[in-house]
Amino acid sequence: MSTAEELGERKIINLILDCLDQMPNMPVPFGDDVSAIDIGNEKLAIIKTDMLVGKTDVPPGMTRQQAARKAVVMNISDLAAKGVQPLAILASIGVPRDLTAKDIQKIGKGLNEGAREYNAYVLGGDTNEASDLIISCVAFGICEERHLMRRSGANPGDIVAVTELFGRTSSGLKILLESLSAPPKLRKELVRAVYVPHARLKEGLALAQTQAATASIDSSDGLAWSLHELSVASNAGFLIDNLPVASEAKQFAKIHRLDPAELSLYGGEEYELLVTIKPRLWEKAKKAVEHIGTSLIKIGVVTEEKDLLLKAEGKKVLIEARGWEHFKTV
Amino acid sequence: MSTAEELGERKIINLILDCLDQMPNMPVPFGDDVSAIDIGNEKLAIIKTDMLVGKTDVPPGMTRQQAARKAVVMNISDLAAKGVQPLAILASIGVPRDLTAKDIQKIGKGLNEGAREYNAYVLGGDTNEASDLIISCVAFGICEERHLMRRSGANPGDIVAVTELFGRTSSGLKILLESLSAPPKLRKELVRAVYVPHARLKEGLALAQTQAATASIDSSDGLAWSLHELSVASNAGFLIDNLPVASEAKQFAKIHRLDPAELSLYGGEEYELLVTIKPRLWEKAKKAVEHIGTSLIKIGVVTEEKDLLLKAEGKKVLIEARGWEHFKTV
Repeated sequence: MSTAEELGERKIINLILDCLDQMPNMPVPFGDDVSAIDIGNEKLAIIKTDMLVGKTDVPPGMTRQQAARKAVVMNISDLAAKGVQPLAILASIGVPRDLTAKDIQKIGKGLNEGAREYNAYVLGGDTNEASDLIISCVAFGICEERHLMRRSGANPGDIVAVTELFGRTSSGLKILLESLSAPPKLRKELVRAVYVPHARLKEGLALAQTQAATASIDSSDGLAWSLHELSVASNAGFLIDNLPVASEAKQFAKIHRLDPAELSLYGGEEYELLVTIKPRLWEKAKKAVEHIGTSLIKIGVVTEEKDLLLKAEGKKVLIEARGWEHFKTV
Repeated sequence: MSTAEELGERKIINLILDCLDQMPNMPVPFGDDVSAIDIGNEKLAIIKTDMLVGKTDVPPGMTRQQAARKAVVMNISDLAAKGVQPLAILASIGVPRDLTAKDIQKIGKGLNEGAREYNAYVLGGDTNEASDLIISCVAFGICEERHLMRRSGANPGDIVAVTELFGRTSSGLKILLESLSAPPKLRKELVRAVYVPHARLKEGLALAQTQAATASIDSSDGLAWSLHELSVASNAGFLIDNLPVASEAKQFAKIHRLDPAELSLYGGEEYELLVTIKPRLWEKAKKAVEHIGTSLIKIGVVTEEKDLLLKAEGKKVLIEARGWEHFKTV
């Protein structure tokens, strides 16, 4: 019989989903970035939980304070992608026996920092003994049902856009996990992208207000995988003709003869928004995001065919449905 | 510097709380069984998260399905103690690499079972690679603010009551963890109390409707510790004159020459309600709980003095503020 290691995260999730009775009239289906409950008056309660595990989610050199902050930010990022302001954070913490009082204070500070940066508060939680550091956070918010940006609404012809260029974190992770080198200034920037991720909350909230987005997801599992997820949920495909590659990733790729497209597509831990926008509302959406000081970068178009295609130098190549996945080495 | 092991769970929690900015006008303070957010119209959103860790929370012989069910039930129990119907459960799961597909299905079944028993649904979650089985659940519900039963309202003269006699789980844990023996029928009952805990949800909901309870807590950290927590939160003491000891615990104590009072007071993993009731509403509260088929057992009275006292055979002895605590051997 297959083990967790052979199954991979997505098959594990499906095995569990198959055991669950489904709540009638779920406002968002299983598998979207968040869960939602109808609380009346056309409002939804939005909840997300995601767990940070020391061994797999804390790269070398990341401090405990940064790890705790990241555990909060990765949950807030999912609310951001849905256009929902987080109000409260809860944290359930597994603490190894040898952590010191100072380590624990750093964790407390990181949790508070992550929440306060996004105008939320840590309201409570729980601690437990565990063999590895575990920080399982919950983010909670409330939104108007009509403002919620699901994964499932992309229509052929919609504009595909992202909030930032990609490839910094995958480069940073190569530095931290595979000991690849980089000049000091570049190294610092790439590594910082991994250690101090930011959720695109203001951008998500602004986009939700415009009602221009037909689908939205955070890119934490990598750009390619996020495209795949949107494609499945929306039953549509994508033609990407402007791959968003960060200049730092290009520089890093050049040094190590890596493919910059690969760094941009198949990374992970990159908390940008990937959205599809109604063409007639494109300017409105773009301005709303620019008003915050962020670019909304057009990278392609939604297609009727279900393929994920990358058009570069006149050729079309398939974007593979892979990305960061626990258990499986990709 | 002290390590987590030396600090103990409660000091760890205080170290973290000291780092947190406090949300203005929190409807329930830090440290109550649940967290709450004011959502307008005199309603509160109630959230709880609690983590089950394989190594410390899954005794020998407990199946993975039972463990997953317990991870849900222990969160629902906290909502039950506040008088709040759980609507949704989320589960963030840390999966060891060697778990099989069948193991994972059992976990899915256990989660669903725990939720459906209490009329809630599992709405989502997340899986991660971890070295030990971790099931961090979230329970969510909504209640009228006036129905919420906090820890903090006990007044001198109020009646102290519980929903069941105590000592089964501490006896069961002695069988499972210390290999103490018991006749087959007794063993089965005691062990089952550990493997298949029940949350007193119907009882909590009924009590909330009566508005008879001035304070309420679930007894998952043991009766003595729960009395201590209520005492601190309500700034009052307790005189217990009718210690609730289950007949099975008395039988078990007799076999091993244990103190049945000890088994009743200093156990844990016993998901009963410990409540304080306005004397003039005692009959109403009692009837509401009996209507469900459960007894509401009067065990003592709230006192002005802050001590926790047990009156037995004409003598008064101090109840120690100890119970099940992770990290610390008690």
